[in-house]
Amino acid sequence: MTSSSPLLPLAPFPALLLEPIVRAALAEDLGRRGDITTEAVIPADAQATAVMRARKPGVAAGVEAAVLAFRLMDPSVTYVVHKGEGAVLAPGDDVMTLSGPARAILSAERVALNFAGHLSGIATATAELVAAVRPHPVRITCTRKTTPGLRGLEKYAVRAGGGSSHRYGLDDAVLIKDNHIAVAGSVTEAIARARAFVGHLVKVEVEVDTLAQLAEALAAGPDVVLLDNMAPDLLREAVALTRTTAKAPVILEASGGVTRETAPAIAATGVDVISVGWLTHSAPSLDLGLDIDVR
Amino acid sequence: MTSSSPLLPLAPFPALLLEPIVRAALAEDLGRRGDITTEAVIPADAQATAVMRARKPGVAAGVEAAVLAFRLMDPSVTYVVHKGEGAVLAPGDDVMTLSGPARAILSAERVALNFAGHLSGIATATAELVAAVRPHPVRITCTRKTTPGLRGLEKYAVRAGGGSSHRYGLDDAVLIKDNHIAVAGSVTEAIARARAFVGHLVKVEVEVDTLAQLAEALAAGPDVVLLDNMAPDLLREAVALTRTTAKAPVILEASGGVTRETAPAIAATGVDVISVGWLTHSAPSLDLGLDIDVR
Amino acid sequence: MTSSSPLLPLAPFPALLLEPIVRAALAEDLGRRGDITTEAVIPADAQATAVMRARKPGVAAGVEAAVLAFRLMDPSVTYVVHKGEGAVLAPGDDVMTLSGPARAILSAERVALNFAGHLSGIATATAELVAAVRPHPVRITCTRKTTPGLRGLEKYAVRAGGGSSHRYGLDDAVLIKDNHIAVAGSVTEAIARARAFVGHLVKVEVEVDTLAQLAEALAAGPDVVLLDNMAPDLLREAVALTRTTAKAPVILEASGGVTRETAPAIAATGVDVISVGWLTHSAPSLDLGLDIDVR
Amino acid sequence: MTSSSPLLPLAPFPALLLEPIVRAALAEDLGRRGDITTEAVIPADAQATAVMRARKPGVAAGVEAAVLAFRLMDPSVTYVVHKGEGAVLAPGDDVMTLSGPARAILSAERVALNFAGHLSGIATATAELVAAVRPHPVRITCTRKTTPGLRGLEKYAVRAGGGSSHRYGLDDAVLIKDNHIAVAGSVTEAIARARAFVGHLVKVEVEVDTLAQLAEALAAGPDVVLLDNMAPDLLREAVALTRTTAKAPVILEASGGVTRETAPAIAATGVDVISVGWLTHSAPSLDLGLDIDVR
Amino acid sequence: MTSSSPLLPLAPFPALLLEPIVRAALAEDLGRRGDITTEAVIPADAQATAVMRARKPGVAAGVEAAVLAFRLMDPSVTYVVHKGEGAVLAPGDDVMTLSGPARAILSAERVALNFAGHLSGIATATAELVAAVRPHPVRITCTRKTTPGLRGLEKYAVRAGGGSSHRYGLDDAVLIKDNHIAVAGSVTEAIARARAFVGHLVKVEVEVDTLAQLAEALAAGPDVVLLDNMAPDLLREAVALTRTTAKAPVILEASGGVTRETAPAIAATGVDVISVGWLTHSAPSLDLGLDIDVR
Amino acid sequence: MTSSSPLLPLAPFPALLLEPIVRAALAEDLGRRGDITTEAVIPADAQATAVMRARKPGVAAGVEAAVLAFRLMDPSVTYVVHKGEGAVLAPGDDVMTLSGPARAILSAERVALNFAGHLSGIATATAELVAAVRPHPVRITCTRKTTPGLRGLEKYAVRAGGGSSHRYGLDDAVLIKDNHIAVAGSVTEAIARARAFVGHLVKVEVEVDTLAQLAEALAAGPDVVLLDNMAPDLLREAVALTRTTAKAPVILEASGGVTRETAPAIAATGVDVISVGWLTHSAPSLDLGLDIDVR
Repeated sequence: MTSSSPLLPLAPFPALLLEPIVRAALAEDLGRRGDITTEAVIPADAQATAVMRARKPGVAAGVEAAVLAFRLMDPSVTYVVHKGEGAVLAPGDDVMTLSGPARAILSAERVALNFAGHLSGIATATAELVAAVRPHPVRITCTRKTTPGLRGLEKYAVRAGGGSSHRYGLDDAVLIKDNHIAVAGSVTEAIARARAFVGHLVKVEVEVDTLAQLAEALAAGPDVVLLDNMAPDLLREAVALTRTTAKAPVILEASGGVTRETAPAIAATGVDVISVGWLTHSAPSLDLGLDIDVR
Repeated sequence: MTSSSPLLPLAPFPALLLEPIVRAALAEDLGRRGDITTEAVIPADAQATAVMRARKPGVAAGVEAAVLAFRLMDPSVTYVVHKGEGAVLAPGDDVMTLSGPARAILSAERVALNFAGHLSGIATATAELVAAVRPHPVRITCTRKTTPGLRGLEKYAVRAGGGSSHRYGLDDAVLIKDNHIAVAGSVTEAIARARAFVGHLVKVEVEVDTLAQLAEALAAGPDVVLLDNMAPDLLREAVALTRTTAKAPVILEASGGVTRETAPAIAATGVDVISVGWLTHSAPSLDLGLDIDVR
Repeated sequence: MTSSSPLLPLAPFPALLLEPIVRAALAEDLGRRGDITTEAVIPADAQATAVMRARKPGVAAGVEAAVLAFRLMDPSVTYVVHKGEGAVLAPGDDVMTLSGPARAILSAERVALNFAGHLSGIATATAELVAAVRPHPVRITCTRKTTPGLRGLEKYAVRAGGGSSHRYGLDDAVLIKDNHIAVAGSVTEAIARARAFVGHLVKVEVEVDTLAQLAEALAAGPDVVLLDNMAPDLLREAVALTRTTAKAPVILEASGGVTRETAPAIAATGVDVISVGWLTHSAPSLDLGLDIDVR
Repeated sequence: MTSSSPLLPLAPFPALLLEPIVRAALAEDLGRRGDITTEAVIPADAQATAVMRARKPGVAAGVEAAVLAFRLMDPSVTYVVHKGEGAVLAPGDDVMTLSGPARAILSAERVALNFAGHLSGIATATAELVAAVRPHPVRITCTRKTTPGLRGLEKYAVRAGGGSSHRYGLDDAVLIKDNHIAVAGSVTEAIARARAFVGHLVKVEVEVDTLAQLAEALAAGPDVVLLDNMAPDLLREAVALTRTTAKAPVILEASGGVTRETAPAIAATGVDVISVGWLTHSAPSLDLGLDIDVR
Repeated sequence: MTSSSPLLPLAPFPALLLEPIVRAALAEDLGRRGDITTEAVIPADAQATAVMRARKPGVAAGVEAAVLAFRLMDPSVTYVVHKGEGAVLAPGDDVMTLSGPARAILSAERVALNFAGHLSGIATATAELVAAVRPHPVRITCTRKTTPGLRGLEKYAVRAGGGSSHRYGLDDAVLIKDNHIAVAGSVTEAIARARAFVGHLVKVEVEVDTLAQLAEALAAGPDVVLLDNMAPDLLREAVALTRTTAKAPVILEASGGVTRETAPAIAATGVDVISVGWLTHSAPSLDLGLDIDVR
Repeated sequence: MTSSSPLLPLAPFPALLLEPIVRAALAEDLGRRGDITTEAVIPADAQATAVMRARKPGVAAGVEAAVLAFRLMDPSVTYVVHKGEGAVLAPGDDVMTLSGPARAILSAERVALNFAGHLSGIATATAELVAAVRPHPVRITCTRKTTPGLRGLEKYAVRAGGGSSHRYGLDDAVLIKDNHIAVAGSVTEAIARARAFVGHLVKVEVEVDTLAQLAEALAAGPDVVLLDNMAPDLLREAVALTRTTAKAPVILEASGGVTRETAPAIAATGVDVISVGWLTHSAPSLDLGLDIDVR
């Protein structure tokens, strides 16, 4: 699953999709009236320069969202990005410099930091987990356990941190779980139904808890098998069983109980992918600040 | 700031505001096509009963959002809530029971858990901090450091955990910070401008770092003073200065460096409010699961 | 409540909030097809200059909305504003000059005038009432009796006319009325519940009809008391009672039966605020016209 | 233009179009948080009965919008309408009775009254003008001078008051004004271009200021001629000229300087339609109140 | 119904209405993530030139929508239009040339072609039918049988092909059909009700199946009569009856069974308008391609 | 790619995604005012029964959308579906029967038919092509050449006709075309980049024009190869090459020049999938009518 081809640098999250999210966040903060403190105290012609800085080490993400927050507030704000999406940040590092009307910079500050802090927090947690499993050629992958409304951006942040993604939603891949199997009657039947139902560009994954289930699944020919909550020893057996049994290549994914501490042992079992919910639902925000100089 | 009047039980987050958020979250997960796994494997007439259970101790929030996720997917899903907004959860506690079409329950599961887990995580962190500062009559308050798009819900979760809220946005109160003061020329001038500018139902808060600034602020008559990053000893002096100097009652708010460990000492200084950004931007999701029985 | 600090000039209504409103108004007028008269008769390359002029005396508001209407129809329209938000208009005064494609100017004309006429009408009515109460240091304040969908803009127009605002909505301040008191059991209990419930940055106002109610209210410590439908003599007594009794400063607001004729006497009683519903719900549109010269 | 066929009773404004408008108005009032006064003070199980009453004489409109406001806040609110759209109201008349959760009724009160007051104000002004021109068989018609976002509803209110409507927008009829004529070169050419351009179900109206222009216009065969700002004597001549000259029936519309005082004389000239901008842009709100009884 | 006045060139579909449609189409294609193929394979700095070419003969429409698709994806894409809305296309003709970032051009390609192909298909079918009825001075007109969400654009495409439009919706003209007549009791009564109900700028059309119905309808004075499913001979009689009987000019519209083969005979009957549903609901897409040269 | 497991019956298109599309289509037709013909002529209490009938043979799709159109117009409309999604229709077959207020049925008629006609047209064309390729076990698959705004529904209609789907958008699978290959330098490199870039649940497809390209592609291990515009003989060679060469199973897809006439020969070559753009962009609407009986 790895390649000698160097990956292209992370492309920006599509602006067409990003803009309505940032616009809504600004409107949420402005309310019905706008920034009354700034309107009351800061003259319209005051100019400011601001630097977004990392206060803790981490990995940058949401940089473009932050820039957009300032520029949607006032298109005359100019900016220089010093550390773009995916850049490693040391405490004190400048992420971006902004110049323009003081009112716009002060009014957009919180929304910009909310995006950059939240997404950089996810990127940072991802990067730490990715580092923990090296040099094993395993992918760290996020799940659908995301914050409502921010799935695309949060998965983008995972990619900024060196991770990858599982399904983006209920419609882009099949994941057969225990309840599906129970209703279908068997793993074999469930996989057969899924294959017959979905388009030829959709992969079929099945979740198993035991080696017996794995053996049955492999016979049915899934694209991916999710090995749920298996200890490293069992995972190692699962990998061996798969590599010796499967008629066609099958990707093995491990999930459950993954922490920075447990991840290396899981990675060492030879699974292809480790998927982790907490990267998106529980990573703490990265501490970023905005130092503003108003003239 | 406390009352002998017992508070009414927490009112639900307004349904009119909640529904579009939950609807958007479901649409985000359904994508362009819907839940292909369930469509492929689960017959339309299969029924299910599901129980949302706490896997860790905590405080419930987002219960109504979760219920709504199931019912927007299919209005024929019925439910019983066992632990409503703000209820204390022990591991294994049933939060709600759902019955209805298996497809709807399986398809809405992830979105329902994403809401309930995220918001219960915030409520839990809040409740822990509130417990830490008791019996001091101090309020634990969240800030504008919220996840874009979820400010109202996240602050609702803080209330479910026993906390309170700072500003909901840039438009409902004045908060004068160092940059505002620098441009205005003085704390006195900044407060005067704000008072003259805003309506008579808007409170004016000013942030100070030193006792000298506090003294100047008190003379200008703010409603609230934010004591930023002061150590407990300094906070205590600030409280004493305020109580002996202010012509009218002034609410004192402390912020900066607040953790469950440091909070008791801060609370003991006599400040009225402790505000904390990480309740909303960094509280980990509470671990909740859905046990489904499909027939 | 007044200040020696000169207020900063009125800041524009936030563009981020204004644009979707103006865009929707244009779409409402264009319908499914656009301006068929102009398309049929005016060549695409015809240019025009247009001057928006006051036909009656008044105060300008909605100037930015009008400019935006033209420029959203065609960004190549250029403009010069002669009389900005809050400017006093004499009949015949030029408000703005526009140049650009004749089609865009003709197609946006009505929407631009609808915004400017409606909002200038509110600003004008406000300015007249503000003038009527001078030199008393009382604020003229609008209410939530606004046109659905235009609350922020209408309150902005009140500010352009020299007025101020009461609550922007149900969520930014507490206003306890007779029904609330009846259910709570007493003014004291109602205020206590409110104080305990809302955040420390939210003011609590209570409405009273009699001096007895006022006395009870003052004991409970509200931030603001609304004296509803009291005659000037009674208002004067209420002011005296408040100034001699209240432990902390209380803002007094009078409402009911306020006209340009009755306002001076009400202002003379010493109340701090006079609130008036008809500024926003019944002010007639200001007569503005657009003189267009097509080439 | 009149008929012996009795008109069907006014149909409701389409619910599909009404609901998003009322929903947006409620969201505007609820803000990010909802009705904090009611949540703080009124228990969830309190019930209420409320009666909307006219405090001034007038004509009802916006009744359905008001009902919908309550029911969108809580679908369990029940209602009886006593005076529907277009009903004549005497002071003290009950318009509707509502029963249900006190919180919902208190929270929706202002929005419901804002719709009903604004639209009833328009219906009332229309009905007064319609009465003033009787028994002349002339139509009173509103224009595109409406409040942004409310065009459909405001024109519906005009119909409730016995009036009719001019264009709903730029796309449903042609109205050729002086600027169009100037560019086209002549009335004849402008009408010819419009006829050739628009579909066969679109009427063509042309505005004229003089009898000479009228004569030219009639030769070009418009469907409607707008006689702008002509005194009654001139209008009478215009009617005579039209009736003797036009090859096909032409509708004559008068506009400009129309008040309740001047309308009868204008109506007596024999024009078919009198159009009036102020019905929609300047009619004062009708005074309606909600008497609430909470249990 | 025709004019010696040359029509102005087709005006663009209003940009304010076009942009949200194109934006939504791009978002539909980008999904939650964007163009993963292009992000994976094409470097951010790769530039491209692309030419949209006709592969079949036809008439261009949707050119502006296509241009907008590229430019909304990236505003730095530049373009030259060679064949604008309504231009005749021969196979191999260049429609437009685009230059800019390769990623944007590749990502917007499909949406741009979907708009241009669909709308050019409608324009082409219209132009063919228009050509088939020449030199008869009859209009080819589309109906409300349009694709949901695209009515305005599809009718614009009909105009690009030389056609015209019937109603744009249920609200801009009256069309009385058999069911309406049955309920009203008679054609006479139905027309009378409609005339009394609608504004003076709204035309009234009635559908008839027989000459007897036509005679009754003509007596009631409609603006337009729709002659439904009549053979050419009957149509000819209907035209004669109308021209000799009607007191005022009446437009005659034929519909039903119209094909390129039958249309000339229908046109020769002397009807004014031929309306055709399949122009909008069944015209095949015009084959257009994009030849891209990436550097 | 086929299965002995019988497929579950076609699940409905998710209601949560369908409702906003149908609502928007109704609003598009109602315009600013609603159905003026029906309001003028049909009393509010008139009831109607209506039967949607096939006038031509075909396959039903969009049945639920049609039902929803009636019920969104008035929830009191009841219905019985006789021929659901995917049912075969003979001329004269009843598709559904509706009962309820005549106004709602008449007003929603056109929108309901527009959905059902358009989508049934796609289902019908698909079913005909599917029938043409039987008994070959090949899939008929639609593409991204869909009508803007209707992609999900149109692909649903293809499934109703027995077809399958290619990508739903740019984000759910990789499709490497000639331009991508040109920039990447080689098929090998392009596939390697894609594999490294996308998640483990995303399939990678590559388009080839020649057997040489196919050989190179197979070596790089794609999931799917698109054989573009190859004649049957060449396709047969490609199938043979693939079956003998590929290390892992590869799905072969043919596209280009597919008609009902050419499809059998293509299917006979042994390819797995035939993809066809015109199913969604050029299928004519199926002729359906609504016979209404108003009482």
